[in-house]
Amino acid sequence: MEIGMVGLGRMGANIARRIMRAGHDCVVYDVNPASVEALVEDGATGAGSLAELVSTMSSPRAIWLMIPAGLTGGVVEELAGLLAPGDILIDGGNSNYRDDVRRAASLKDRGIHYVDIGTSGGVFGLERGYCLMVGGPDEAVAAIEPILQAIAPGEGDVARTPGRDGELAPEERGYLHCGPSGAGHFVKMVHNGIEYGVMAAFAEGLNILENADAGIREAEHSAEVAPLEEAEFYQFDIDTAKVSELWRRGSVISSWLLDLTAAALHANPALDGLAGRVSDSGEGRWTVKAAVDIGVPVPVLAASLFERFASRDEDRFANQVLSAMRQQFGGHVERPVGDVLEAGARKAD
Amino acid sequence: MEIGMVGLGRMGANIARRIMRAGHDCVVYDVNPASVEALVEDGATGAGSLAELVSTMSSPRAIWLMIPAGLTGGVVEELAGLLAPGDILIDGGNSNYRDDVRRAASLKDRGIHYVDIGTSGGVFGLERGYCLMVGGPDEAVAAIEPILQAIAPGEGDVARTPGRDGELAPEERGYLHCGPSGAGHFVKMVHNGIEYGVMAAFAEGLNILENADAGIREAEHSAEVAPLEEAEFYQFDIDTAKVSELWRRGSVISSWLLDLTAAALHANPALDGLAGRVSDSGEGRWTVKAAVDIGVPVPVLAASLFERFASRDEDRFANQVLSAMRQQFGGHVERPVGDVLEAGARKAD
Amino acid sequence: MEIGMVGLGRMGANIARRIMRAGHDCVVYDVNPASVEALVEDGATGAGSLAELVSTMSSPRAIWLMIPAGLTGGVVEELAGLLAPGDILIDGGNSNYRDDVRRAASLKDRGIHYVDIGTSGGVFGLERGYCLMVGGPDEAVAAIEPILQAIAPGEGDVARTPGRDGELAPEERGYLHCGPSGAGHFVKMVHNGIEYGVMAAFAEGLNILENADAGIREAEHSAEVAPLEEAEFYQFDIDTAKVSELWRRGSVISSWLLDLTAAALHANPALDGLAGRVSDSGEGRWTVKAAVDIGVPVPVLAASLFERFASRDEDRFANQVLSAMRQQFGGHVERPVGDVLEAGARKAD
Amino acid sequence: MEIGMVGLGRMGANIARRIMRAGHDCVVYDVNPASVEALVEDGATGAGSLAELVSTMSSPRAIWLMIPAGLTGGVVEELAGLLAPGDILIDGGNSNYRDDVRRAASLKDRGIHYVDIGTSGGVFGLERGYCLMVGGPDEAVAAIEPILQAIAPGEGDVARTPGRDGELAPEERGYLHCGPSGAGHFVKMVHNGIEYGVMAAFAEGLNILENADAGIREAEHSAEVAPLEEAEFYQFDIDTAKVSELWRRGSVISSWLLDLTAAALHANPALDGLAGRVSDSGEGRWTVKAAVDIGVPVPVLAASLFERFASRDEDRFANQVLSAMRQQFGGHVERPVGDVLEAGARKAD
Repeated sequence: MEIGMVGLGRMGANIARRIMRAGHDCVVYDVNPASVEALVEDGATGAGSLAELVSTMSSPRAIWLMIPAGLTGGVVEELAGLLAPGDILIDGGNSNYRDDVRRAASLKDRGIHYVDIGTSGGVFGLERGYCLMVGGPDEAVAAIEPILQAIAPGEGDVARTPGRDGELAPEERGYLHCGPSGAGHFVKMVHNGIEYGVMAAFAEGLNILENADAGIREAEHSAEVAPLEEAEFYQFDIDTAKVSELWRRGSVISSWLLDLTAAALHANPALDGLAGRVSDSGEGRWTVKAAVDIGVPVPVLAASLFERFASRDEDRFANQVLSAMRQQFGGHVERPVGDVLEAGARKAD
Repeated sequence: MEIGMVGLGRMGANIARRIMRAGHDCVVYDVNPASVEALVEDGATGAGSLAELVSTMSSPRAIWLMIPAGLTGGVVEELAGLLAPGDILIDGGNSNYRDDVRRAASLKDRGIHYVDIGTSGGVFGLERGYCLMVGGPDEAVAAIEPILQAIAPGEGDVARTPGRDGELAPEERGYLHCGPSGAGHFVKMVHNGIEYGVMAAFAEGLNILENADAGIREAEHSAEVAPLEEAEFYQFDIDTAKVSELWRRGSVISSWLLDLTAAALHANPALDGLAGRVSDSGEGRWTVKAAVDIGVPVPVLAASLFERFASRDEDRFANQVLSAMRQQFGGHVERPVGDVLEAGARKAD
Repeated sequence: MEIGMVGLGRMGANIARRIMRAGHDCVVYDVNPASVEALVEDGATGAGSLAELVSTMSSPRAIWLMIPAGLTGGVVEELAGLLAPGDILIDGGNSNYRDDVRRAASLKDRGIHYVDIGTSGGVFGLERGYCLMVGGPDEAVAAIEPILQAIAPGEGDVARTPGRDGELAPEERGYLHCGPSGAGHFVKMVHNGIEYGVMAAFAEGLNILENADAGIREAEHSAEVAPLEEAEFYQFDIDTAKVSELWRRGSVISSWLLDLTAAALHANPALDGLAGRVSDSGEGRWTVKAAVDIGVPVPVLAASLFERFASRDEDRFANQVLSAMRQQFGGHVERPVGDVLEAGARKAD
Repeated sequence: MEIGMVGLGRMGANIARRIMRAGHDCVVYDVNPASVEALVEDGATGAGSLAELVSTMSSPRAIWLMIPAGLTGGVVEELAGLLAPGDILIDGGNSNYRDDVRRAASLKDRGIHYVDIGTSGGVFGLERGYCLMVGGPDEAVAAIEPILQAIAPGEGDVARTPGRDGELAPEERGYLHCGPSGAGHFVKMVHNGIEYGVMAAFAEGLNILENADAGIREAEHSAEVAPLEEAEFYQFDIDTAKVSELWRRGSVISSWLLDLTAAALHANPALDGLAGRVSDSGEGRWTVKAAVDIGVPVPVLAASLFERFASRDEDRFANQVLSAMRQQFGGHVERPVGDVLEAGARKAD
């Protein structure tokens, strides 16, 4: 079948390539003509504008947007004016599912189908395929199923879940119609919320291993922390690159994120050059807000989000308040206190 | 080579079987004669007591203990009296690494080598192999390397980490000498701490998906929670079994724990019959305590542990205190308050 | 001056009484005629409807709403149709500050001033006075300052903050103009978010004290938890009612919430009859969502909110998932495992 | 009665002064002769060594140690050799309660009573009195009760808890015999654990208020955070010094820690000169470890401890791991990503 692709960044371009490899036709557009050019060389039909893309395609059209979430609203609006009833507009980017709910309702009035697709796979997706979480009306999702099959990883070499047999279900091929409009991005949002938690679990654990030599370093230990108790139990100089490689084989926590961690630590064991200021995209935040809305406790997911905030010093004023309080009630000055020999003066808090 | 195996529960028996499959000899003992019998049928030499096991083996001996952590101290003590200098005692169970540090020092005085091995792999280990985290003196670890290779998964079908080439390193075969005595169980402890965090991330995320229909259920919603705001955004009836299956293919969070989750939800989508009282073994606790000792922040790992405590109602008194406070300051009674129509009375906190 | 009071629940009625005690006139209305009657006996002028209340008052009017947040929107709408330019509408309830921002903008178009006031004080406010956090345009806030002074606690017996001298600032009298529309309820929202955190800190700490006898109770200890290590250090039978009373005098954590805790525990030391299902009103949730929006880490405030969710079993599905995972990877069954004597079988995770 | 005071830092000296003000006799010693001198001027009897202090006092002696926890063990040992059966040794410092349990058992063998006292009060204790949490044998605690009464705040101006009447209980005078040896420091430990949580609740809440102008600052907003959504709701320029002053009057969260916060913010509204590297003493750590031991969930107390660790960059390696992972799976580079205009490339996670 024919599909339009708007947005030819790394992900959009690679998705288009997977679609073409499966034998479908792609009409492509990007604000950057060079990106269009590159895809045309790979066999796509190029378009110089959204209008040209729409006019080039035959009805009913299916157009996949793969653009930054901040731009999606405007492009949807522009395309809505160009499309005809029966056409399908697909948002494969990282939109907030709430925007899907609103956009789907608005487009429905004009007879245009709206499908939201959460896409996971990262830089490896071209070869591995992309995991697709789909929301939207049954009819539209069914119409684009060949495209979903082309993009998804398929069965791959993942062992079949015990108890499943017969024909492969869509979720076993790597795509799933999760529910009505918004459901795709909702599931993707939670996916990313989980991802934050899993990443944090590994990061915290590796940080313990990295500091398992605290008893050796004790002599140089900053006086601003409480003195290390039982230093004899923290005498390990652990090689975190080797450990993360080890865990990839046979351990309960083997996972793709661990594969990546092992690769990163092998390439750069001391993680030199990384400041550890960890960005966050919207999904982790939306996940926590959704959980709060519906009253579901998510201490782990929230903690993993807050760690990222703190990594960027967003906890600064809070920490200053704590230091200021400590000065007030205990006369604690914010500096190494270990050298204060004055008996009994120190910790009256 | 020859190895003694003490403790023939599921894990000990399966490890012995993997060792024999690799062509080594096993002398086995368990308090339960039937367990010994079963291994003898598989080719092992049985022993009726620890003393018999020791006398049956030739020097220098290597004896692997695979027994509950609570019993290890006594058995080590008993074996210490039976073994000779140069023998190697291996604790492959779930001991606290601090016990390793103490036991190794004590046995060293008698010339006995002590090796601690953290073992991960669960019920699938017989076929998949076990991931082995090893602590102890170089000489002793080198001596048992053939056994470690027999038990470990080997290279398997895990893709090689980019940048690694040449001969496979031990960690690429599934075992690693992590450091001196205690290092093996220390790394295993942190492994389990991470496991708790990863499990919690999945559990919390799936709980959000399970409750994404809160807007549909709003009518029956308990009055004791704040009323759901923006119910229109929580209208999704998500199939968590299908979603967890989906994520196994191509998504960033694909992992063995996800495989197990998909299997569990496929077999029992509503998780009927599970009360959700989640046990914890020692490792999760020791991980948090170690982090506190060395001053490493582990909000995610700690939260995942505390969730388990709370799942068993260990938060009861705290919650009663909160209810009691609320009664005091706001006249809040602990019951549905939504039916109180009295204007303005409700939330003066 | 004259003020209208709509909503004569406990808080509305008591606020009206404090206003009248200060020599001002109150015109009052409630859907419940008996509530109006009670205030009339105390000297207020009663009204049988919003329209009557408005027509009874002279221009420019100032009308204070003290009604459940869910009803505020409708009443504001109705009053907007009855009021005249220059009138002041005050929302003293627990509205979301976002509603204030919207309502203020809408009313401004009609020339009506809107003032949002967060009110803290609970059941003790009639005698103690209410702490008032005020948002709105300067002119309107200035106009109602005599009323704010009547309701607020005034200087009271609170020691003056070191460095402050001269005439008392408004915040030293218990009211503060925090900023434009919404600022009052925003500050009140954060106040309640802090309150959740403080309450949780006390509740968790008291729970530790309550269980400081775990070493004594060890024999009956449930097998589903890890065995208590070092039971000799948990042999304390602490009287939490006495301890909370003690801390009221001279300790760093003396506070009004501690006063209430001491009162609650003195009246009911075992907290009999409290199920510990802790409700939450909107403010705690809004606080966490606001922090997420602006990227401020609030692990403590969020944890205190999630504890309340969990106290109502909103963590049920997550915990079931955890139990299901454990069954899968370790063959752990969800029941006491301590009686399993099978060697080595137990914890292969 | 007569009491010996060892350690004349700020707290030891002030406690000695309160004792003398109440009419008791103090024999004092400190390693710093000037500190002894100062107390002698205030009426104490000075001693030049522990031996001289012991020989100066009449039997049975009661000696109060107010020295850094790290030195207590040695001094107890030295004094044990000097004291006679029936003497009482009091540790009023910040010892770990576990040390009390051990020391009390050891001293009991020599007939010496050991009393552990947790002391709260900080720099204000001289005037306000100190809150005393006492552990030890009944006989010894009874013997020193006059001293406890002298040091404790007494009834003060704290309102009596409803339901209490008749003679004041010890806890209403500011001291309490909490249980056997260790109970005093155990209760003090939990007190400090709670303190950490309460402090964090205030600090986090004030951080939200401080950043309530995020919508105004949005233009300069770092690209490394997700773009602020709904900036119109974060337009508040809140004066945190005034708000903390306000809350002292009539609000639910009025407390001594709030008094201190208001004082600190009044003196230094922007908290200039504070780096926000927050120290922690041992009690917060011991509290979390005790909770973990007995299986009590303390997410809030633990989070408040971990925030302090993170404030000192102890989360560095964890954050580097997160950045490294993000580079791997999404090609995210650790720098402002907002300027990347490439369509669709950005967030494939």
